[in-house]
Amino acid sequence: MGRWEPDARGRLEQAALELYVERGYENTTVSEIAERAGLTERTFFRHFADKREVLFSGSAALTELLVNATLGAPASASPMEAVSAALEATGAVIQRRGAGAQQRQSVIAANAELQERELIKMASWASALSDALRRRGVEDPAATLTAETGVAVFRVAFARWVGQPRKRDLPKLIRESLDQLRELAGGG
Amino acid sequence: MGRWEPDARGRLEQAALELYVERGYENTTVSEIAERAGLTERTFFRHFADKREVLFSGSAALTELLVNATLGAPASASPMEAVSAALEATGAVIQRRGAGAQQRQSVIAANAELQERELIKMASWASALSDALRRRGVEDPAATLTAETGVAVFRVAFARWVGQPRKRDLPKLIRESLDQLRELAGGG
Repeated sequence: MGRWEPDARGRLEQAALELYVERGYENTTVSEIAERAGLTERTFFRHFADKREVLFSGSAALTELLVNATLGAPASASPMEAVSAALEATGAVIQRRGAGAQQRQSVIAANAELQERELIKMASWASALSDALRRRGVEDPAATLTAETGVAVFRVAFARWVGQPRKRDLPKLIRESLDQLRELAGGG
Repeated sequence: MGRWEPDARGRLEQAALELYVERGYENTTVSEIAERAGLTERTFFRHFADKREVLFSGSAALTELLVNATLGAPASASPMEAVSAALEATGAVIQRRGAGAQQRQSVIAANAELQERELIKMASWASALSDALRRRGVEDPAATLTAETGVAVFRVAFARWVGQPRKRDLPKLIRESLDQLRELAGGG
């Protein structure tokens, strides 16, 4: 039980996503996830608090990436350029998750509670981005407006990407969506 | 019990908001709300399913207003102009609620569950706005992008307004925030 399991976490994630897609999130138990991964329930609970956390445990790392990329953008970058660079960097990481990102999204789309949790995650991204912009010296309301808008742009780009993750490039879709926003906002 | 109570709904709303501010949302019971309003619990439950619904029962009417104002914008209006007009009309209604709108916001800000519910409401606004834009012939992703961005603009303007509801004009703040977004997006 206590021995080291090679990539237990990754195996549990993959098993959970497979089962959520096959049987539905509601109908999957932790015991089934552990069994599919060839591990014990005890090992599951060493890595995740519950079956929902499997879907959201990557969120903290993505938030950290968003913040660091915003802070690390060139001093000459405008607030929107800094946020765009951060979202593109995050998009590249999500894209590398490939089929897992798509499975995750289909599971979330099928469950109201998970959709709510995803909304909260997006709100926390906006909050983290606006904090990072303020640390770059951007004042409010510009910081909040840029962060909230950036997250809206990301969501639209992500929704386009997730339908065809192999054919489309998420960072490129984020840039395109921001370009389109510029046109839409300018057309006022 | 069955007799008609003049403006029972409005009295219950006011009593609930007062108590939520005074004692906290968690610590207020339906019985206390009814008592403060000089009404019975039975009357409360004729108007609201539970104490949370007091805070969100106006949401359906605002969503309807958003949709109708978007559809009713001149045919020549750009997507962002149509959404902006709809959000300004909604902002004017919220502004007329005056102190009630401010109390409501302070109650929501103090409770994580209510904040989540508010996020869901905002997501449903974005969804209703993008549906209305598609009915105007706007295609995706422009419809979703405009709707999501519009709601982000509204949230920022609302946060500025709610701190000083008597000194500031919410529809004007929405226009200003949209102007600022145009600058921020264009600065890319």
